[in-house]
Amino acid sequence: MEEIKNILPKGGHVKNITRFEKIEKYPVYVEPFHVDFTGCIFLGILGNHLLNAAGNHSQKRGWGISALNETHHTWVLSRLSIEMTEMPRQHEYVEVRTWVESVMKLFTNRNFSILRPDGTPLGYARSVWAMIDMETRKPCDLLTLYDGDILNYVVSPEENICPIEGHGRFRFRNPQLVRTIDTYYSDVDINGHINSIKYIEHILDLFPRQRFERQSIRRFEIAYKAEAYMGDRLSFYTQQTEPDNDDSIDVEVRKNDEDIVCQARILFR
Amino acid sequence: MEEIKNILPKGGHVKNITRFEKIEKYPVYVEPFHVDFTGCIFLGILGNHLLNAAGNHSQKRGWGISALNETHHTWVLSRLSIEMTEMPRQHEYVEVRTWVESVMKLFTNRNFSILRPDGTPLGYARSVWAMIDMETRKPCDLLTLYDGDILNYVVSPEENICPIEGHGRFRFRNPQLVRTIDTYYSDVDINGHINSIKYIEHILDLFPRQRFERQSIRRFEIAYKAEAYMGDRLSFYTQQTEPDNDDSIDVEVRKNDEDIVCQARILFR
Repeated sequence: MEEIKNILPKGGHVKNITRFEKIEKYPVYVEPFHVDFTGCIFLGILGNHLLNAAGNHSQKRGWGISALNETHHTWVLSRLSIEMTEMPRQHEYVEVRTWVESVMKLFTNRNFSILRPDGTPLGYARSVWAMIDMETRKPCDLLTLYDGDILNYVVSPEENICPIEGHGRFRFRNPQLVRTIDTYYSDVDINGHINSIKYIEHILDLFPRQRFERQSIRRFEIAYKAEAYMGDRLSFYTQQTEPDNDDSIDVEVRKNDEDIVCQARILFR
Repeated sequence: MEEIKNILPKGGHVKNITRFEKIEKYPVYVEPFHVDFTGCIFLGILGNHLLNAAGNHSQKRGWGISALNETHHTWVLSRLSIEMTEMPRQHEYVEVRTWVESVMKLFTNRNFSILRPDGTPLGYARSVWAMIDMETRKPCDLLTLYDGDILNYVVSPEENICPIEGHGRFRFRNPQLVRTIDTYYSDVDINGHINSIKYIEHILDLFPRQRFERQSIRRFEIAYKAEAYMGDRLSFYTQQTEPDNDDSIDVEVRKNDEDIVCQARILFR
């Protein structure tokens, strides 16, 4: 995969856009029902805020879901990695910032920072998105879509740093089946797919109360591989990432005990 | 239970408060991940917005959770009935309004309206709340707490109408066990209790996709009876409210197959 940064494709229109306009700021208030029993925001809820910030960023710049739907295209989330030094707590106000770090033919990297009102970073996130044709479900060329307008908004790592590691690789050796669940009405989104955020909830639900009493999540990574639908049975397989480290757990989710739906890694501190 | 409206207890300070100040307005934007596969907001998410509006109303008037916690008191939701003519859809802006309809010694009735930006009502809700002492878990006298200040904010039914029926009565005859689930990390709130909104999700998850494809929820009622905790096993029993009407379903939720945790009624249209 060839990485192209800040290079406009043929036919692209160079706009004079400031760094300020390239970065979207999304205010978040941590609601009472959005925190866990330790008083910290649920990671799934935080993930939802990140996706909303991403949606706003695209929407305001002309390539949001509603504009895309007119041409039968949509964004698909492929990877999400969130790393927090501290979780926002009940009643806190935080700001999510998001920007496009790079654009390749079939994927774009979008980063996030999560900041206190005084600018202190609480954490960062990285994500990878593809754009697909809703009819063929095939990926589109991001470098030519809308005359490559997205390239006008790239903020290079030098301009705005995202100081967390990139997405890791998963190597499942002999993971153990730990839970199988059915999926219901509340699990699916407007497209009838199991909602990306619900996977995060179901994955964290694999851990007992004691884990969250003594540890917090330092990093959470997820790779979305295939869609599942309401009624699909999801099986959760887990392994320690390394045999002698109980603080890093890999989870593979399969539907109807066949296809891999997603893979995740949870690092506790 | 003696009902007292707009009567200040001994020692109460009469404030000159306008109707405008008595009613809280809470803006809601319907986020993409908050809608079901039909594009309408999940009822649980709508319920969450109502509870946030209620929290804001109390908070701004001096008897919100954080003020109460200083004196070791807290609000407890006892009943919630939501009736919608139309559900807000993805990307819609709506306004939730809430006010206190009446105050009795041990309970207060709080109402809600859900409005389009042009003022068209989409639906209404009624709720009943008690205040308890967090140590003894016993209810408190609302008429004397904070010198009965809450009575200054009562909006009578003549001033602001809530044109939906009051909370109904449940009569379980021989309900059938339809599902048993375990409860996990995502189910519990900051107090370690299964979160009021999660019950709504689990109850609606009892219905198959076909039900939501052909019908929408006209009214949803829930009565909270006892707290459940992470790890409790919840059993769901259902019956038709009346033998020959398939559109009104009663659900009783029991924990560890003994105590009743909550009871709900769902009316489909």
